Amino acid sequence: MVETCFSFSSNNSVIDSSESLSCICKTGYQTLTTDKASITCQQCPADKPAVIKDGFGCIRCPGSLSDEGKCQCPPGNVLVERDVNGSLLEEAICKTCNGNSPGLSVPNSSGDRCERCQASFINTSCVCNPPNVLAGGLCFPPGSLSTNVNPSVNYGQLKFSVLSAWFVKNLYSSSAACLVFSNLTACQALGNMCVMNMHSFGSVSTDACGLFNTIFRSRAALSSTQDISYWRVNLPWLYYGDEPGLASRVLQTDPVPIRFSFRGRNKNTDIKLLAAVYNVRGEFLRWEQVGGGNLQLCPETTTKQAAAFSFGTAYQESCDLSVAELLGTHPEPLFYDVFMDLGGGENRKLLPLPTLVHNQQYNGRFINQESMKNWYLSRRMFVVDMLSGREKSMSSLPKVIRVASSVKIRFQLVSRTQEGQVFPPLMTVTYRDVPITDINTQTVSTTFAVEYEMEQNEARIKTDTALGVMAGVAALYSLLKTVSWKRRIASPLIDVETMLKFLMFYAGDLANVFFAVTVGTGLYWLIFYKAQQFVSVLLPLPAQEEQFVTYIGCAFALKAVQFLHKLILQVSTDVFFIDWERPRSKASRTMQGAGEPKRDPSPVSIWRTYFVANEWNEIQTIRKISPTFQIMAVLFFLEVLGFSNLALRDPWSTLQRSSQAYTPSYSLILRYGLAGTLWLCIGFLQVIFFTVFHEHFVEDKIRQFVDLCSISNISVLLLSHRCFGYYIHGRSVHGHADTNMEEMNNNLNREAESLCGQRGLLPNTEIQTFQVSLTNRLRSQYDRIREQIGRRNGPSRLMDASSANQFEQRARGYQTMNHFLGSVIDHAHPDMDYVVKDKLMFERVIGMEFLEPSEKSIFYNDEAHSFSDLLFYGNEATLLIFDTLFFCVVDLGSQSFVLAAVLTCVQQMIFRLIRNTLGRKNLVSKTLVDERFLI
Amino acid sequence: MVETCFSFSSNNSVIDSSESLSCICKTGYQTLTTDKASITCQQCPADKPAVIKDGFGCIRCPGSLSDEGKCQCPPGNVLVERDVNGSLLEEAICKTCNGNSPGLSVPNSSGDRCERCQASFINTSCVCNPPNVLAGGLCFPPGSLSTNVNPSVNYGQLKFSVLSAWFVKNLYSSSAACLVFSNLTACQALGNMCVMNMHSFGSVSTDACGLFNTIFRSRAALSSTQDISYWRVNLPWLYYGDEPGLASRVLQTDPVPIRFSFRGRNKNTDIKLLAAVYNVRGEFLRWEQVGGGNLQLCPETTTKQAAAFSFGTAYQESCDLSVAELLGTHPEPLFYDVFMDLGGGENRKLLPLPTLVHNQQYNGRFINQESMKNWYLSRRMFVVDMLSGREKSMSSLPKVIRVASSVKIRFQLVSRTQEGQVFPPLMTVTYRDVPITDINTQTVSTTFAVEYEMEQNEARIKTDTALGVMAGVAALYSLLKTVSWKRRIASPLIDVETMLKFLMFYAGDLANVFFAVTVGTGLYWLIFYKAQQFVSVLLPLPAQEEQFVTYIGCAFALKAVQFLHKLILQVSTDVFFIDWERPRSKASRTMQGAGEPKRDPSPVSIWRTYFVANEWNEIQTIRKISPTFQIMAVLFFLEVLGFSNLALRDPWSTLQRSSQAYTPSYSLILRYGLAGTLWLCIGFLQVIFFTVFHEHFVEDKIRQFVDLCSISNISVLLLSHRCFGYYIHGRSVHGHADTNMEEMNNNLNREAESLCGQRGLLPNTEIQTFQVSLTNRLRSQYDRIREQIGRRNGPSRLMDASSANQFEQRARGYQTMNHFLGSVIDHAHPDMDYVVKDKLMFERVIGMEFLEPSEKSIFYNDEAHSFSDLLFYGNEATLLIFDTLFFCVVDLGSQSFVLAAVLTCVQQMIFRLIRNTLGRKNLVSKTLVDERFLI
Repeated sequence: MVETCFSFSSNNSVIDSSESLSCICKTGYQTLTTDKASITCQQCPADKPAVIKDGFGCIRCPGSLSDEGKCQCPPGNVLVERDVNGSLLEEAICKTCNGNSPGLSVPNSSGDRCERCQASFINTSCVCNPPNVLAGGLCFPPGSLSTNVNPSVNYGQLKFSVLSAWFVKNLYSSSAACLVFSNLTACQALGNMCVMNMHSFGSVSTDACGLFNTIFRSRAALSSTQDISYWRVNLPWLYYGDEPGLASRVLQTDPVPIRFSFRGRNKNTDIKLLAAVYNVRGEFLRWEQVGGGNLQLCPETTTKQAAAFSFGTAYQESCDLSVAELLGTHPEPLFYDVFMDLGGGENRKLLPLPTLVHNQQYNGRFINQESMKNWYLSRRMFVVDMLSGREKSMSSLPKVIRVASSVKIRFQLVSRTQEGQVFPPLMTVTYRDVPITDINTQTVSTTFAVEYEMEQNEARIKTDTALGVMAGVAALYSLLKTVSWKRRIASPLIDVETMLKFLMFYAGDLANVFFAVTVGTGLYWLIFYKAQQFVSVLLPLPAQEEQFVTYIGCAFALKAVQFLHKLILQVSTDVFFIDWERPRSKASRTMQGAGEPKRDPSPVSIWRTYFVANEWNEIQTIRKISPTFQIMAVLFFLEVLGFSNLALRDPWSTLQRSSQAYTPSYSLILRYGLAGTLWLCIGFLQVIFFTVFHEHFVEDKIRQFVDLCSISNISVLLLSHRCFGYYIHGRSVHGHADTNMEEMNNNLNREAESLCGQRGLLPNTEIQTFQVSLTNRLRSQYDRIREQIGRRNGPSRLMDASSANQFEQRARGYQTMNHFLGSVIDHAHPDMDYVVKDKLMFERVIGMEFLEPSEKSIFYNDEAHSFSDLLFYGNEATLLIFDTLFFCVVDLGSQSFVLAAVLTCVQQMIFRLIRNTLGRKNLVSKTLVDERFLI
Repeated sequence: MVETCFSFSSNNSVIDSSESLSCICKTGYQTLTTDKASITCQQCPADKPAVIKDGFGCIRCPGSLSDEGKCQCPPGNVLVERDVNGSLLEEAICKTCNGNSPGLSVPNSSGDRCERCQASFINTSCVCNPPNVLAGGLCFPPGSLSTNVNPSVNYGQLKFSVLSAWFVKNLYSSSAACLVFSNLTACQALGNMCVMNMHSFGSVSTDACGLFNTIFRSRAALSSTQDISYWRVNLPWLYYGDEPGLASRVLQTDPVPIRFSFRGRNKNTDIKLLAAVYNVRGEFLRWEQVGGGNLQLCPETTTKQAAAFSFGTAYQESCDLSVAELLGTHPEPLFYDVFMDLGGGENRKLLPLPTLVHNQQYNGRFINQESMKNWYLSRRMFVVDMLSGREKSMSSLPKVIRVASSVKIRFQLVSRTQEGQVFPPLMTVTYRDVPITDINTQTVSTTFAVEYEMEQNEARIKTDTALGVMAGVAALYSLLKTVSWKRRIASPLIDVETMLKFLMFYAGDLANVFFAVTVGTGLYWLIFYKAQQFVSVLLPLPAQEEQFVTYIGCAFALKAVQFLHKLILQVSTDVFFIDWERPRSKASRTMQGAGEPKRDPSPVSIWRTYFVANEWNEIQTIRKISPTFQIMAVLFFLEVLGFSNLALRDPWSTLQRSSQAYTPSYSLILRYGLAGTLWLCIGFLQVIFFTVFHEHFVEDKIRQFVDLCSISNISVLLLSHRCFGYYIHGRSVHGHADTNMEEMNNNLNREAESLCGQRGLLPNTEIQTFQVSLTNRLRSQYDRIREQIGRRNGPSRLMDASSANQFEQRARGYQTMNHFLGSVIDHAHPDMDYVVKDKLMFERVIGMEFLEPSEKSIFYNDEAHSFSDLLFYGNEATLLIFDTLFFCVVDLGSQSFVLAAVLTCVQQMIFRLIRNTLGRKNLVSKTLVDERFLI
């Protein structure tokens, strides 16, 4: 009976077709032909019921038939179907293999031939008789190793252990083969089992690491490998010794004989790591360059992964991996012995990397999570272990898997090296035990990181020293300021207010100290880290940056206090506009009848005062820089030109990074140093531009204001302290300013042609601005008149008659004050006279007056327009530093320069609004100018 | 002589130790024991000089010894060293295998046993005698296939071909086995060779594809597979037919029976692609889900790679791969037949994806690079082929490798679908031929992309229609404006200036049209694409965005023209300040002697005029928004809150994206729509805030200015056209304003208490602001006086006497003008009288006056302060749109919102500076107010 099957047909009446893509004959059928995509089968005759192994023939059996219709032989026998020359026998033969010497044969794995038995059986003629122990296909002599071993894997994080199928099968045989036969792969396999057990051991010696240590000790007599005392011949090197303090000796004694250099002729940033790779059975597979994904589980482009091995680039790559995928890619663990390649061409030298297994237990204690002196360094690691957690059989799904959730290589720079030397790098491995619940949805996170560290104590001490010294100097300076302030308010008492004032001054000075130190430090790191040739400094780690951030916080808080203090002082300054204009009727030489009524025919127009007050109000918040341009310029440099890339934790100083390249994390210190420096530099350039170029060639608002005072015949007296202030002399050189356009123009022309006197307070001088120290008497008189003017709100549209009366009273007070101050300036009060003098250089520097104005008030010449100290204009440094700190603090908090820019801009708007509003209110209440004219 | 070798010892005097890790015995030595990590060898006795194959024994040979010291048999013989039961023979035997039926045996590969020969030989008793053809281990009957085949691979890009070792070995045998035996794997292997040859074929049929097509045609009689006429039984499906227009029929006729939906209950965005994977030998390996790196060569995290198969997400991933690494990971090519999984549980249906091989040649023409009607669709692709380019042997380095440098899957949406239907997606594969020069440094770039496309013609026609219609309306509107302008300059002539003016107006209106259409379109895409449930629209591809970008460019250019035009008009407006103040001496009722000199004893102070001019100068560039806040707010929304993520080419509308997630590219249209809308919205909100809240409760600069005019007794006449302008009536209700603080305050109080008249021009009205249409006569008179004032520069410090004289003349002109205008307003010139009336609603809307001021000038009440049209303030719409376009244009050019913000800010600063400077110069020349008072 011949039947034919075509592939793809599903005719399986007589043909077995287990997959639709191919045909095979049914049991009891022999194959005739297989050409033309078909197979032809024929049933075997009754006298030869069995099909031979290759399927193309029928045979008689010596014994029974198997389920597949083939002949079957008893165990230890082989089935012979063909002659030696290939002719098919009529009847198959079952042969017992001759196990005795010299043949020493046993059936091969497919049971059709006799082969030589394993070498360890040879003494016992292919049978392992008791008391010999048969294990793992080997025959061990009795007494070599107790068979009492513990083949369980302990999961420390999950607090249970699993009876591992792999350990059950291999632990005893590997240990015995290692101990008895010194079998190299067996020893490696045993070592691997110890590694899979987290290198953990204790007093019992029946687990993998215990057995390893037992064998290790038994080899004490033998010489060590490569002159390393922890590495015995034929054994893998798993442990460093357990002497106390060994870890720090290994890690911090001898520098690696390689010099790292970031640039120049000797540029060397390649970290070459080599790994000896073993499979779980202990076979050495190959030498592998570490990189390209063998320890880095996260999928990344080669370029990015390679960045991990560029010295100085802080590398960290994390991701979540699907467990199902891991199972596919890592069915068996691979074991890595990692070395650093020291180069050297022919005589290449390798430096073993000490490994710290975070999960390692010693008598149940996690010693490697304690301080360094308890560490127990080891060697060899794996990345994924899907094998040891399989409980019943090696093909079952693992109950638990272990993944190296964190692999971190830490380089420590040799202190005070100028040549880029490092200590042997430490590998820290943390494994994670993942119990398998749903393999398709479970994920496990993993991190690979390379860190660079240097001893920061010295730098910290230097910083703290600088801080201490400067804070001391600042305290002295603040004290000086307080003394100066006491003199200016003419109060000798030391009271609570004085203490508070001192603290306010000190806040500002201390803020400057903190600011200088932090920006200096940031700039130091920026320059020294990014520009060094041979590696001599490494960035502080994020954990080491905390103190620095605290300093910045202090600087900002103190600066804010100072800024608010100044703001409050500015919006409570005493201002008075002295109008020099006298009514025309007297001044003009026209004849007028005597006995004229008291009321002046043409009152002096108030509009000049309005004009000056309006201008004074407008210059309150002008600055030496354009704040908007400042923010935009900083943003442009940082975000558009890519200066922000300078703050990355790598040694490169390129501004544009390829999107393909690895981007390390940002260093807070570098970010601060960069942003702070950039902000200050652009601010400084702007100040120079505005003070040097813009104010000379475009417009100078302050000079314009002084000029305006002169033209409008109005002086300004500003009293910032009780007995100290500023005076702008604005008496018109033409006597009158309240005139028509033609005369105004004439006046201006005459002045331009120097046909009239000079504007100065003293005859033939040009100086119009003064700092004034008033006598107590003058101030008391001033206060008395000031009281009349009162402190009520200025006039508003809704006022009843009594308040109108009140205003009249106040206006009279205003007139009195105008007259009084005018006469004082005109030396008309001998008891309140004043002298004009130059300030000493030293007085200028420390901002304090040595002479006390006891008899006469003192007017100090002040060409520098220092009355702008009462405006934003004169406090540019404070504002600039405050803005810088605000920008940096927001950036440190949010890691976003854009957000920092936006908030800084909003902050500036708000404070400008506050300053303007309060400043205007102050002006209204002090000068009686209606708010409607301050627009 | 017994010798022992320890592993790791390098003693190789008698022991062969080819690797240092293990020992083997030298030639002629048998192994005695191998325990304890050592090996013991013994020289064979002279009568049994050969070592047996397993090494543990010596034997006599029937023939000669091989170099390794083993016995050697002639070809076709097997070497027998052991008995059937495993006992070692004294002398080995060489046996000839019996090749005849029914044994049909030949020596096996290791030459120690007879085995059955291959099935194709069976008819000829294990020898393939001519005329049968022996190929690939098979024996073919004569005449089945010409042995004249062309086993070369053609590299079209490099213009040479390589005699491929793989093709040499397998092309003939595969073809013959496929043709003669219908061997499934042989047919697949032949198909794979055709795929490796880029599916290219021509008239000759000796290359891989030619042979495939020959066999394909020979199967015409057989039924097709899966009812697909291009797919024959037992053959792989490589080609679609070659009928003209087949490609568009396949790609654009039947929608895929799947509905994609972005959100809601029926959310379905998963694109499930399955691939049948074959190895190069033609064996079917597995079904594989496409994704996770099988077609995506670039290393990426699973999450990012999975984004490629989320419908609607434009995916593109490119990278450079190292050739050396590719060689390691892809030693042999895999072949993919890609299907789309249509789901359906048990009866899962698959839709084959047509593939377009860019490199496919047909008779030497690259037909697939031509238009769609010439396309020749195919199936099956590979990703990397390192095999076909090996020239001499399969183990040599390949001479050329082929990489799929671009794999692109393109989905096309069914037009007018509301249900998310697509046509069968097309896979486009472009291979790159890379000649190997230096395998370690060479890289090859590769791209995987998924694109979504829809028919855009309809949208484009709609856009163009809208544009056309609106441009027409704009033309009419511009015409109207031109007519209005002609009336306002009182010139009936149509000259070149009129044409130019029309073009200027038209530029502005057309810019608005372009702006509206583009922002509308952008917003349309933003809303409809991001918010749709069932997919009904897909974004235009980058190539389809070009027209849109052109429109934006037009809008910007035209808007810039309009903006500059307005700027020029604004800085050339005619301004005059009319001072109503009369000298006190006459106004005050004090007795004065008659015959007084002509010269007025107290001239009217010019300071009020200075004050008003100063304020007018200050409000030139105020706006209804805060430009800085505008930029910062937009930046905040886009960059900090992450609105920019809305412009990504995917259907999700989340603002914050995980850094782990895939980031598609930006869509220019969405970016523009987003930035434009956001800018306009924030601008609009700011305008509302400023006009509704800020101006009512904080300050309104325009109202303050009008108020100031009233208080200061000064009117302002602004002439923007020859016979049209604005008038702010500022005559003080108190008669005098040039007085002291007390009186000023009294006046203000009286006004607050309504004790005096109202401020309006007409008695008992409040309206102070007017639009004025002047008669020609009035204007001529105005011009005559204006001539006296002259257009020379204002006074400066350096003027000689003659110029001082000149100024006096001009000042007299100024007085004349003041007097003239005052008397006109006071109805003192009957021939230049005016009437006050309300403007009609329609006149307001179209901005044109219907009445011509022939006899009397007309003053239109204007409570809306429309004189602000001469300031930035009244042109907020133009400025806002100009800024928006500027921001968007910079962003489209640079793809950086930060740069756009910075440049917009700088642009605003520059134009504000220009406007201020030129505006001040204009004011100086028109009003004779010295520049020093405009601060």
